[in-house]
Amino acid sequence: VTRRHLINAPDEVIPEALAGFALTYPHLVAYDSEAALVLRRELTPGKVGLISGGGSGHEPLHAGFVGAGMLDVAVAGAVFASPTALQIHTGTVAADQGAGVLQIVKNYTGDVLNFSIAREIAADEDIAVETVLVDDDVATTSSKVGRRGTAAVIAVEKICGAAAEAGADLATLAALGRRVVGQARTLSLALSACSHPGDAEPAFVLPDDLVEFGVGIHGERGTARIPFGPADGLVDQLVEPLVTELQLTAPDPVIAIVNGLGGTYPLQLFLAARRLHDGLGQRGISVARSLVGSYVTSLDMHGLSITLLRADEQLLSLWDAPVRTPALTW
Amino acid sequence: VTRRHLINAPDEVIPEALAGFALTYPHLVAYDSEAALVLRRELTPGKVGLISGGGSGHEPLHAGFVGAGMLDVAVAGAVFASPTALQIHTGTVAADQGAGVLQIVKNYTGDVLNFSIAREIAADEDIAVETVLVDDDVATTSSKVGRRGTAAVIAVEKICGAAAEAGADLATLAALGRRVVGQARTLSLALSACSHPGDAEPAFVLPDDLVEFGVGIHGERGTARIPFGPADGLVDQLVEPLVTELQLTAPDPVIAIVNGLGGTYPLQLFLAARRLHDGLGQRGISVARSLVGSYVTSLDMHGLSITLLRADEQLLSLWDAPVRTPALTW
Repeated sequence: VTRRHLINAPDEVIPEALAGFALTYPHLVAYDSEAALVLRRELTPGKVGLISGGGSGHEPLHAGFVGAGMLDVAVAGAVFASPTALQIHTGTVAADQGAGVLQIVKNYTGDVLNFSIAREIAADEDIAVETVLVDDDVATTSSKVGRRGTAAVIAVEKICGAAAEAGADLATLAALGRRVVGQARTLSLALSACSHPGDAEPAFVLPDDLVEFGVGIHGERGTARIPFGPADGLVDQLVEPLVTELQLTAPDPVIAIVNGLGGTYPLQLFLAARRLHDGLGQRGISVARSLVGSYVTSLDMHGLSITLLRADEQLLSLWDAPVRTPALTW
Repeated sequence: VTRRHLINAPDEVIPEALAGFALTYPHLVAYDSEAALVLRRELTPGKVGLISGGGSGHEPLHAGFVGAGMLDVAVAGAVFASPTALQIHTGTVAADQGAGVLQIVKNYTGDVLNFSIAREIAADEDIAVETVLVDDDVATTSSKVGRRGTAAVIAVEKICGAAAEAGADLATLAALGRRVVGQARTLSLALSACSHPGDAEPAFVLPDDLVEFGVGIHGERGTARIPFGPADGLVDQLVEPLVTELQLTAPDPVIAIVNGLGGTYPLQLFLAARRLHDGLGQRGISVARSLVGSYVTSLDMHGLSITLLRADEQLLSLWDAPVRTPALTW
């Protein structure tokens, strides 16, 4: 079966979608079409500015998280391609309201490079910038370039966003963000791969009896192909390495994210969430808070990721703080 | 390519997913597993109770809309199958807080029958019940059983929910809901059909050069197969009949819902939203408010629906009123 896409032309997808996004949320965001920036409609003088971004195709990440209590600026690259250093610089200047800018960067070579260049340019212009590098994907633990950054970025954006809103300074936010990253791990699996807008073929093809385990969010193959079977067993296989990596034991509380990768309908995510709660509960680990939905996607990929973040009172309080963005509001 | 589903067993999907849903939103909802009811965690004495429900497979509808400013009770049937009259009755009794109950029912034979029986039983028990029948799908205008109910149900739930919160009585809410239904129309198209949990085959197969136009949310075939092409042209073909049916002319304001049917990634929905804004704007019709996302789905169907609701100050004000549910919060 050919994959089809409801688009006009592959090169137009991102600008057209961003324009539609801006038309949908005029009360929350502003849009700079030239630099492909989505900005919080009203920036707060004296608050540290939070900027994130990266390749597109992961919506609602990152533009969906621009707003009070989360990001000030999101910078969009082409599908699965980093934004340029110039775009990021424009975003950094916009985000700076006199107290410096926190960059939240997923660990991919292009993003790391371009955010780094933008940070250096900003330094020349006397804008203080700190970077939190998000590298939560357990599947890439042994990679030379380090672990990839995936859904834990939501927790970093939410928690640092709340702290920034409460008046934390740049150094405090950077330390907090790094602490969240250090306490968070993610693992993913896919039942089918994604296809780029306009492409008739998926990034890879799986036989009916296998699941891609440890898959990335850009069509990267996983670390293994494991037998397809009941959801509970597949969820257990995601959870086990996360518990081990984070050395979770009873009665540790965690914040859990059950994240759909794009083509996963909600019934599947919620029955996976049930198993996650049960499995952690049997270990005496409590799911103190959870988020279930498609938040860090990979176009039309059918699969899910599970993120666990070791929590404490401070992190739970920042997680619970009010947030008002297109994709996350409470 | 075989369709695969991340489930345990088809019969377990709904109870397992509802259990996961309840574990995810303990601060917002309560869950009655026996009657498959999701209830607002704290019901309000003296407020008219709002109940909706229907077959599952359309998540986040309806359980995702339970909470302050929207539904009090959602009743879940099996996939694409009405809940029983007994379930609905149990939900009606729970929803009644002394001011009667408003049923919001999508126009499908099973739902209409079972909600009607539940209403009669409630009457015997001196619970006042009124029904708003939602029938917005233009594709079924000439059907003997009337138009199907689809995504306009969100607008009815949101607007009546806000009015109920503000103290409106049962008769007022019923009239308001019927007014919304009368002013709302929806039309859908699909690039691929849905498959039931556990099924390897989709409900129908489309050739690569055709789109199913006027499709339903239960795998029902559409009214026509039209040529596949650029998204803008397909969106235009959805919008034209809606404008005609609602007799919209400049400078009418509308509330628009661009709704993903399950397997449609957000970039596609937002670029469709852009075209919708442009197309209506060229007619002098203003999109006063819009909602873009996958709210009334059909499992893994790849497609979208567009709903237009002729708006006025009262409806916009009720639309804007605060809402706090798992799937819609502002």
